[in-house]
Amino acid sequence: MNRLAVALVHYPVLDRQGALITTAITNLDLHDIARTARTYGVCAVFIVHPVAAQRELAQRVKAHWVSGSGARRIPTREPAMALLQIVPAVEDAYAALGGRSEVDLYTTSARRDAAGALGYGGARARIAATSKASLILFGTGWGIAPSLLETADVRLAPIRGTSADDYNHLSVRAACAITLDRLLAGDADRSS
Amino acid sequence: MNRLAVALVHYPVLDRQGALITTAITNLDLHDIARTARTYGVCAVFIVHPVAAQRELAQRVKAHWVSGSGARRIPTREPAMALLQIVPAVEDAYAALGGRSEVDLYTTSARRDAAGALGYGGARARIAATSKASLILFGTGWGIAPSLLETADVRLAPIRGTSADDYNHLSVRAACAITLDRLLAGDADRSS
Repeated sequence: MNRLAVALVHYPVLDRQGALITTAITNLDLHDIARTARTYGVCAVFIVHPVAAQRELAQRVKAHWVSGSGARRIPTREPAMALLQIVPAVEDAYAALGGRSEVDLYTTSARRDAAGALGYGGARARIAATSKASLILFGTGWGIAPSLLETADVRLAPIRGTSADDYNHLSVRAACAITLDRLLAGDADRSS
Repeated sequence: MNRLAVALVHYPVLDRQGALITTAITNLDLHDIARTARTYGVCAVFIVHPVAAQRELAQRVKAHWVSGSGARRIPTREPAMALLQIVPAVEDAYAALGGRSEVDLYTTSARRDAAGALGYGGARARIAATSKASLILFGTGWGIAPSLLETADVRLAPIRGTSADDYNHLSVRAACAITLDRLLAGDADRSS
């Protein structure tokens, strides 16, 4: 199995009106995404935030669960939270994986207008075939800003649910869980 | 498509040591599970809690997003949060769906020792074939207590990830998202 990492992006992302913003780190995002990532064998979870005070907060949360009293109270949380790498910018995630040229970069979006978006079967085949690390970016707020989306090697197809009116307003925690299950779970586990 | 509902159970559930406890309601559980449920066309999300003050808290959260200032600020949250039905016991969920005899009851668990657990393909076929409402119970804490598990018509197979050591400590928010995607998403959306 090839290396796959995820990144949770707090900048550059959009707000409801489409303006460029930086979002705050949510404690439960760190836990949920780390636990999901560890369950699916993901090699790293990058928490991308440009503000040093926010990165320090995330580092303290990580330390509590990796080496502090949290690790003693709930030992199963340690292997998940140990995956967290808190970095100022997506470029730091690329560097950690060997440089941008060694990364196959995927972006995710709930928008249906992404021309040329790749479906999950196609992405599974691509991940299996590449010699690069695959990095999947998830946006907070109202999604990853166009300036970053445009740099992707692959735009993953939006997750379509099954509601009659095509409602798809998943939390980033749920979207990450569904995406990793679609990309990484065994066919037998998913459907048999 | 047949009626499918989910319930988030705060009692009876287990703690880390296997003792019977009641857990507190987590605000983000309400949002994440409601948003996922709405995305997949689920007909109701039962929040099961025996303590009146906890139910009142959940009702206030629901009202904020369905008819209060939250609904004006983020209108897309309303159709999701409107699915919430806050009830004292699982029996109230059965009653809302026409009575226990009209409910096909599924329990979920991360434990691998469940004899006779049904996989996701089998569950999809069963949901499509039944004339009953399908109700899927998710436990908080360290999972649904045996006394409730034993009353299930179906025990859903645990979600197996793909980590080398079979780590599977998903949050209930992630487990619910993956379960609904496996049970309800179109085959084409999941794999093509």
